[in-house]
Amino acid sequence: MGLHIGIDLGGTNVRVASVLENGEVDEMMQEPTEAEQGPKYTIEKIIRMIESVAGDQSIEGIGIGAPGPLDPHRGVILAPPNLPGWDEVPIVDHLKNHFQTTIKLNNDANAAALAEARFGGGKGYESVFYITVSTGVGGGLVINGRVFNGAQGYAGEIGNMILNPHGYQYSNLNKGALESYSSGTAMAERFSDQFGKYGAAEDVFELVSQGNEKAQRIVDEAIDYLAMGIANITHIINPEVFVIGGGVMNAGELIWVPLRDRLEDYVYPGLVEHIHLEPAALSGEAGVIGAALLTQQ
Amino acid sequence: MGLHIGIDLGGTNVRVASVLENGEVDEMMQEPTEAEQGPKYTIEKIIRMIESVAGDQSIEGIGIGAPGPLDPHRGVILAPPNLPGWDEVPIVDHLKNHFQTTIKLNNDANAAALAEARFGGGKGYESVFYITVSTGVGGGLVINGRVFNGAQGYAGEIGNMILNPHGYQYSNLNKGALESYSSGTAMAERFSDQFGKYGAAEDVFELVSQGNEKAQRIVDEAIDYLAMGIANITHIINPEVFVIGGGVMNAGELIWVPLRDRLEDYVYPGLVEHIHLEPAALSGEAGVIGAALLTQQ
Repeated sequence: MGLHIGIDLGGTNVRVASVLENGEVDEMMQEPTEAEQGPKYTIEKIIRMIESVAGDQSIEGIGIGAPGPLDPHRGVILAPPNLPGWDEVPIVDHLKNHFQTTIKLNNDANAAALAEARFGGGKGYESVFYITVSTGVGGGLVINGRVFNGAQGYAGEIGNMILNPHGYQYSNLNKGALESYSSGTAMAERFSDQFGKYGAAEDVFELVSQGNEKAQRIVDEAIDYLAMGIANITHIINPEVFVIGGGVMNAGELIWVPLRDRLEDYVYPGLVEHIHLEPAALSGEAGVIGAALLTQQ
Repeated sequence: MGLHIGIDLGGTNVRVASVLENGEVDEMMQEPTEAEQGPKYTIEKIIRMIESVAGDQSIEGIGIGAPGPLDPHRGVILAPPNLPGWDEVPIVDHLKNHFQTTIKLNNDANAAALAEARFGGGKGYESVFYITVSTGVGGGLVINGRVFNGAQGYAGEIGNMILNPHGYQYSNLNKGALESYSSGTAMAERFSDQFGKYGAAEDVFELVSQGNEKAQRIVDEAIDYLAMGIANITHIINPEVFVIGGGVMNAGELIWVPLRDRLEDYVYPGLVEHIHLEPAALSGEAGVIGAALLTQQ
């Protein structure tokens, strides 16, 4: 049995790890991505990192989790905002020139979804919808231990789900999309509108814990829309469990308690007790673990 | 090889048919449901209809498509608004007392989805999302030729998808749900608000074809919300094809042309050309054909 290598290619850092059968990270390296140096530079760095992690052991499979949009079928990274200048980069082909093994590419949220479904908050469930609430809002669907990509790889792109046609608009997303309400960026923007200064999602939660009503309204709105998004996913595919992670969810019961509460208003009464919301369990390692699982679906 | 029997149990009529391997209806009977006589009465009628359709041939499987809510796993019809007084009716068990064969229950939209996926507008596609726009708005998801029910059977309940938290409210649905905008009932209600008299969806389309602007606005809104619903499903599971049927879709190019047009505004640009919208092809027979397929998934 050779190694399973996972690559978590982020806008800031790239991590390469060998991941054991039980989902534990065996060895891991991290380097700055330096995306601005161009794809060739970063890919060569990744190749050196893989060689370093693998040593003289054989490699059974390599998986890459990267920011979208990308084409998982062709193994090509398409112009993601988080990797400026990376336009139609056939990263799987590049790596195949160096490693004669199975190599798969998928987006970072799908990789994390796979890790959470197999070894994290979704362990033991047949259909798992993973949601990450962070700078943006993303997601991934795993059915029977496999990522459900959808026909063009857009399954799980829930940040763009329309919830209010008269709502806020954000960059290239739909007007009133989930991400324009519930993401950390959205909360930070509301903060700056309300308080006239810069503040991150954590600052909003800090004020909430001090009883600040304006901050509470920002959080209420973000949670309300997240609950609507979860209700919509339920009425479209009714997954067995939602696993929810990302920095914003670290606010703990300030977000989890009202989230469960709001959700009750938006699903059929008979369904309420059956909806499982679980916190993500693998924290920062979900991406690299899930990437290593991409060749083992 | 024995017969495959499909039962389409509607609020008004019940149809029982034997369906061939190629999806064609061989023999079909129809009777009034008379739901108000109670489940025992109607189920006995169904048993006689099955015996009549089958004659002396052996039966290989029986499938029932019925209005929701119901529990496909237990084979129980739960209090559907379209079958008043039917509360927790274990229809599968009742039929099993008479027929020693595989018997499956699913909701009518899922049965129609299965028929359209196998033999209708979704034929040849791996993942098919069927949408019916009729009195209500419903749907069903078929992946690799099988109905995806979801954990509690609520997959495809898209009529309850929230699209506008400040929107119209309907019976037991969410405020601003898809059905409160795009269903025939919703259009009829807008008609009565605008014109001060009763009119069905067909009357609205009739006025549109005569150039009436108030009627055009009713249709525009219904189509706009349907397009948003399709976009949301795309950004959640990105099915290979949408198959759209139901009475409202019979308005032809008055609805199909603007629907494709509006959808372009709501999905990522790279995705537009890949979204397939197909009209349902089996019309009134999809329910009974799909029911017969329920035991052949």
